[in-house]
Amino acid sequence: MVASAFLPELWTEILVPVCAVIGIAFSLFQWFIVSRVRVTADQGASSSSGGSNNGKNGYGDYLIEEEEGLNEQSVVAKCAEIQTAISEGATSFLFTEYKYVGVFMVFFAAIIFVFLGSVEGFSTKNKPCTYDDTKTCKPALATAAFSTVAFVLGAVTSVLSGFLGMKIATYANARTTLEARKGVGKAFIVAFRSGAVMGFLLAASGLLVLYITINVFKIYYGDDWEGLFEAITGYGLGGSSMALFGRVGGGIYTKAADVGADLVGKIERNIPEDDPRNPAVIADNVGDNVGDIAGMGSDLFGSYAEASCAALVVASISSFGINHDFTAMLYPLLISSMGILVCLITTLFATDFFEIKAVKEIEPALKNQLIISTVIMTVGIAIVSWVGLPSSFTIFNFGTQKVVKNWQLFLCVCVGLWAGLIIGFVTEYYTSNAYSPVQGVADSCRTGAATNVIFGLALGYKSVIIPIFAIAASIFVSFSFAAMYGVAVAALGMLSTIATGLAIDAYGPISDNAGGIAEMAGMSHRIRERTDALDAAGNTTAAIGKGFAIGSAALVSLALFGAFVSRAGVHTVDVLTPKVIIGLLVGAMLPYWFSAMTMKSVGSAALKMVEEVRRQFNTIPGLMEGTAKPDYATCVKISTDASIKEMIPPGCLVMLTPLIVGFFFGVETLSGVLAGSLVSGVQIAISASNTGGAWDNAKKYIEAGVSEHAKSLGPKGSEPHKAAVIGDTIGDPLKDTSGPSLNILIKLMAVESLVFAPFFATHGGILFKYL
Amino acid sequence: MVASAFLPELWTEILVPVCAVIGIAFSLFQWFIVSRVRVTADQGASSSSGGSNNGKNGYGDYLIEEEEGLNEQSVVAKCAEIQTAISEGATSFLFTEYKYVGVFMVFFAAIIFVFLGSVEGFSTKNKPCTYDDTKTCKPALATAAFSTVAFVLGAVTSVLSGFLGMKIATYANARTTLEARKGVGKAFIVAFRSGAVMGFLLAASGLLVLYITINVFKIYYGDDWEGLFEAITGYGLGGSSMALFGRVGGGIYTKAADVGADLVGKIERNIPEDDPRNPAVIADNVGDNVGDIAGMGSDLFGSYAEASCAALVVASISSFGINHDFTAMLYPLLISSMGILVCLITTLFATDFFEIKAVKEIEPALKNQLIISTVIMTVGIAIVSWVGLPSSFTIFNFGTQKVVKNWQLFLCVCVGLWAGLIIGFVTEYYTSNAYSPVQGVADSCRTGAATNVIFGLALGYKSVIIPIFAIAASIFVSFSFAAMYGVAVAALGMLSTIATGLAIDAYGPISDNAGGIAEMAGMSHRIRERTDALDAAGNTTAAIGKGFAIGSAALVSLALFGAFVSRAGVHTVDVLTPKVIIGLLVGAMLPYWFSAMTMKSVGSAALKMVEEVRRQFNTIPGLMEGTAKPDYATCVKISTDASIKEMIPPGCLVMLTPLIVGFFFGVETLSGVLAGSLVSGVQIAISASNTGGAWDNAKKYIEAGVSEHAKSLGPKGSEPHKAAVIGDTIGDPLKDTSGPSLNILIKLMAVESLVFAPFFATHGGILFKYL
Repeated sequence: MVASAFLPELWTEILVPVCAVIGIAFSLFQWFIVSRVRVTADQGASSSSGGSNNGKNGYGDYLIEEEEGLNEQSVVAKCAEIQTAISEGATSFLFTEYKYVGVFMVFFAAIIFVFLGSVEGFSTKNKPCTYDDTKTCKPALATAAFSTVAFVLGAVTSVLSGFLGMKIATYANARTTLEARKGVGKAFIVAFRSGAVMGFLLAASGLLVLYITINVFKIYYGDDWEGLFEAITGYGLGGSSMALFGRVGGGIYTKAADVGADLVGKIERNIPEDDPRNPAVIADNVGDNVGDIAGMGSDLFGSYAEASCAALVVASISSFGINHDFTAMLYPLLISSMGILVCLITTLFATDFFEIKAVKEIEPALKNQLIISTVIMTVGIAIVSWVGLPSSFTIFNFGTQKVVKNWQLFLCVCVGLWAGLIIGFVTEYYTSNAYSPVQGVADSCRTGAATNVIFGLALGYKSVIIPIFAIAASIFVSFSFAAMYGVAVAALGMLSTIATGLAIDAYGPISDNAGGIAEMAGMSHRIRERTDALDAAGNTTAAIGKGFAIGSAALVSLALFGAFVSRAGVHTVDVLTPKVIIGLLVGAMLPYWFSAMTMKSVGSAALKMVEEVRRQFNTIPGLMEGTAKPDYATCVKISTDASIKEMIPPGCLVMLTPLIVGFFFGVETLSGVLAGSLVSGVQIAISASNTGGAWDNAKKYIEAGVSEHAKSLGPKGSEPHKAAVIGDTIGDPLKDTSGPSLNILIKLMAVESLVFAPFFATHGGILFKYL
Repeated sequence: MVASAFLPELWTEILVPVCAVIGIAFSLFQWFIVSRVRVTADQGASSSSGGSNNGKNGYGDYLIEEEEGLNEQSVVAKCAEIQTAISEGATSFLFTEYKYVGVFMVFFAAIIFVFLGSVEGFSTKNKPCTYDDTKTCKPALATAAFSTVAFVLGAVTSVLSGFLGMKIATYANARTTLEARKGVGKAFIVAFRSGAVMGFLLAASGLLVLYITINVFKIYYGDDWEGLFEAITGYGLGGSSMALFGRVGGGIYTKAADVGADLVGKIERNIPEDDPRNPAVIADNVGDNVGDIAGMGSDLFGSYAEASCAALVVASISSFGINHDFTAMLYPLLISSMGILVCLITTLFATDFFEIKAVKEIEPALKNQLIISTVIMTVGIAIVSWVGLPSSFTIFNFGTQKVVKNWQLFLCVCVGLWAGLIIGFVTEYYTSNAYSPVQGVADSCRTGAATNVIFGLALGYKSVIIPIFAIAASIFVSFSFAAMYGVAVAALGMLSTIATGLAIDAYGPISDNAGGIAEMAGMSHRIRERTDALDAAGNTTAAIGKGFAIGSAALVSLALFGAFVSRAGVHTVDVLTPKVIIGLLVGAMLPYWFSAMTMKSVGSAALKMVEEVRRQFNTIPGLMEGTAKPDYATCVKISTDASIKEMIPPGCLVMLTPLIVGFFFGVETLSGVLAGSLVSGVQIAISASNTGGAWDNAKKYIEAGVSEHAKSLGPKGSEPHKAAVIGDTIGDPLKDTSGPSLNILIKLMAVESLVFAPFFATHGGILFKYL
């Protein structure tokens, strides 16, 4: 008998929900602070300027000047109007999207129930357990039913995460714009707090729902933890499949609008970004909220849910589950609970302990968030590992039980956490225009768009190297110490600071939209410069967020893959067998197929948008002169229709591949497909995100013209700048549609395989069986 | 005792060299016919127009008109002059390249000798055989020495292949131009015959050298076939490592010149391609010959050598080797011998049985070459399999012997052969402007360069799907029937029609250069239109050739990988072990790293070229007006210096990775790296080649303006055309530098691992041993 954890079960039962509630409360508190910025015209100015602004002016940076335009009521009214338009557009799109996805979800829930129920022929009798046939477990039909329920719960939580994120972001956009009138520091705080609202709400509610589900399911399952946590994996599948549609649909929406708006507005008509004369401008801003915010929220929630499920399912067949040590069993949730507390402290460093006084302090402040959270979390993990784990225990390792010490598991979580930080920094290095890679790309614009593209692609490819080594190192350490459980907790380590990660990530699109609103509301160019400064940092943090999402996806999907293989009863996945190698080859191809679909979708939708925007410029008299209003609604409709229609084929590719391969070709080939798509997809995802981020910031570098070098390439409208805009446009679908969707592809196929593993193990591979 | 092959050993000993000699003779005969086109000014016109042209005119195509300019002696003199300049430039570059590579080769030969010799501590005593320790084999020192010799032989043959190919191509360029005066059909025949010279010379000499080497080595090895064929693998390594430098160096050379010339000439100065006023024009034409011709020649020779070596080394430890059945042992060489005869017949269909009478017949004629050779070869394989194999035999399958029938092996070869045809057709579909994909890309140029790039990238990604399924299917069939031997002969099947493949492949750059010469010699636009028509078909065939090279590389490298694993004593390559999965992940990253290096190299070199070309246009008075001559030599020097300098880092990455991984991390991790780079590299290689090919032909589609749709996008100089030129420029390094080099990366790392397998098995993995 192995010793159990130091922390009593009761304490665990209390601590996890308490931390979750603290997270939610903190999130609401931040919301309250943000809401004090009024966007109603009557009393807005007086109340928002009444804060602690006592004569403290002249921050020493040229962008931070005297407050301006605080009393222009018309500006506030205009901001409110635009905010409403964006919010309504986003809400309407998300409802349309959810309607379609809802149908799919019902259909897929039925598939889960039928397929899993068929494993034991819908028998209601208890059966011998899979991993220990001396014990009796609940029937397969129960797993089918509870998996279906968990799937629906995961899907609903994911939808809520995305939807609330979008609501918060649209709520914060105009407020950030208005605060920008008082200086860049004020605007930064609002944008950052709003990001934090989303970050904490997601992290905490994800934890809470998972915790409650486990406890409710436990009422039925009792001591059958194997069945209990097998059913819980449905939660991860639900979360991730919603995230897929959110990312792909939102990604197509945002980029169709963005590319379409840029191609006509910036390149042909030579009007600024977000100019209200551009008919696609509202669609573009709506897109930022449904794609970057709602999509990203669902995505990271999915990663978090899957990593937890992967860890739990492996733990349930390890000594934790066998000995029914509830505290140790919930170690993954304890890590996440600790993460919420750590991120809470970290947030205070940005919002309360220090103050942003100059533009150049923004990026370091965001970067410090990463460092601070990582350092504190390291201590947090040590505490959790000490109190939450027995000093020695065993972990299921493909048929055998491997002895693991608590300090080894501590190292597994840490290696994931720190690998995340490294990935974050490398991403920053390759996508921030403060460093030579992006400056080199900007410089290549001298000779035109072609060299810009060549250098940008090369940069993206190169940026893959260190993250892959970091991921490989974490896999090696965690896998060697604690098999697939180690990999799963390494993924959780990387995601443990998710609240902070999401906060700085959501900050990006919020600032971007704030700039858009400033432009549309006709505010002075100074305000626009301030929001641009926020946005440039936001591009980098968005890239960092994607880096985290991809890195964690790689670890998560490996852990899920391991759990799948265990559950499917496969003992080795030998590359040197025909079934596996063809799976590997085809799996490595899937990300290309998927990217081809999504990029083509963005391209086609953008072409339609271009035609519509051109049509409006050509047929609406006075539009270019600003005397007539464009028809925003038609552009919103084009984006909506395109994304709803175009998200279905890539969605089906991802959702159906595991089912088809598993059913017809069996679990060995499916294992190959999962491994292949993992190792290939992670590379394309990283390179696509970073290439796109670099192009965007190379353009911003030329526009901002801060250094001598940058000035020699600019100003806006120069030939190098035009070349940079082309690169930026190409990067849009790469960084916001294909790239970030790929990490969902690799996770989702793995979690889906895991959920259907009992089915494949029983009925799979019919093609080889009957040939 | 298993029955031996029907064909007596003596007959095999005679047939193989006879076929090789027939191939060489046929090649020389074609050369003789091509040489009858005179490029000396005095008597050229009369002799070349004296053929069978008896009044047969009006081929019914608007490009085929009356003969023109046949008597302009000055044109012939100019062509001769340009041809000399190109030939001298190419020769000088190749000599410089070979000088540097020679040093590397000597160094690497020493490494092979020392590392392999150290396996048994440089003992000169015989040792027990690796696979059958009841027998005695030659010492490891002998394998070291003979491997080194084989390596040098392979390298020298590869150099000669590339060099002779270049010589033939430069010899044919001006002749094609001059024949174009008589009509497109005449020009086609000259270009095609010249391609055939190269194809047959390479295929036949590769076979002959391998055959002689085996027989010479056999004098020492006697009955130790295990050692004999282990040493022979050095031949493949030598061939492929030269190919690597040839492809990378040549690829950087050609694209630096091409991109540089286009960026200033076509985009900034608006002068036509290959205009003699462009200072980079000679470098560009030299580049086509050293990159596309010499590089491709070395590459396909390498594939052929490696596929043969992989098959031979597996056969040597199967019943063929154990029973010393020499005919069955040389089955791979018999296939290649048959291939030469089949290709010979196939060639006659293009040169003698039918005549090209119109432009639209060119592409079908080339396509028919593929179909005819595949159909006849299927019969050829059946004959060889029937006479060259026992009806039943055993094949080594990772520790066990698997019983295989001769008809099964026949199917293995066929599946490779036909998969090659499928890959060829898919490539054609995605890169020829006769079909909708390229037309769609051309159409996207309406909205500018950004959509062109997005659509082009999506097209490349999409074009991966069917080839991967074709490769997967061939792997599955051949692997299931005959383990790694099956995969190796499937690769040989794909490469069996290499002579025809190379002929239609070399045809492309020859036509391209012919067009360049026509432009530079100031010939009429009609001549240029004719050569352009040849060239458009050539772009597609070049893409098809790359498709073949990549597809065969995938099969070859898998076969080599299998041989490596067998030789290194690994029994399973289980993805679910930390050592393998990190190898897989890092291996999948290597093609990105490699591409980043090569693309950056092209970009940087092109920037230098641009500056030089701009400088010349700005400082040489009368250059734009055509009254002053540009300084071609400086541009040639820039390309030469850049490619020599820049080929070293990617070369080292590929050559050192297997050594470092094998030595420090051991054979399991190395297995992962090989599998990872294989499954990832093949995708990037295919997509890069096809994207580049599609952009090139989308541009040509707009320029040619044959359909209503194409006319609406053109003419030259229109906005869509400018966008198309940008895409074409981006595609240059993708399709001619990164893409085609990647297939060498995957093959070369595999063959290198195989050669060093005895060393790794003894001394490898020191990091894990001592940690």
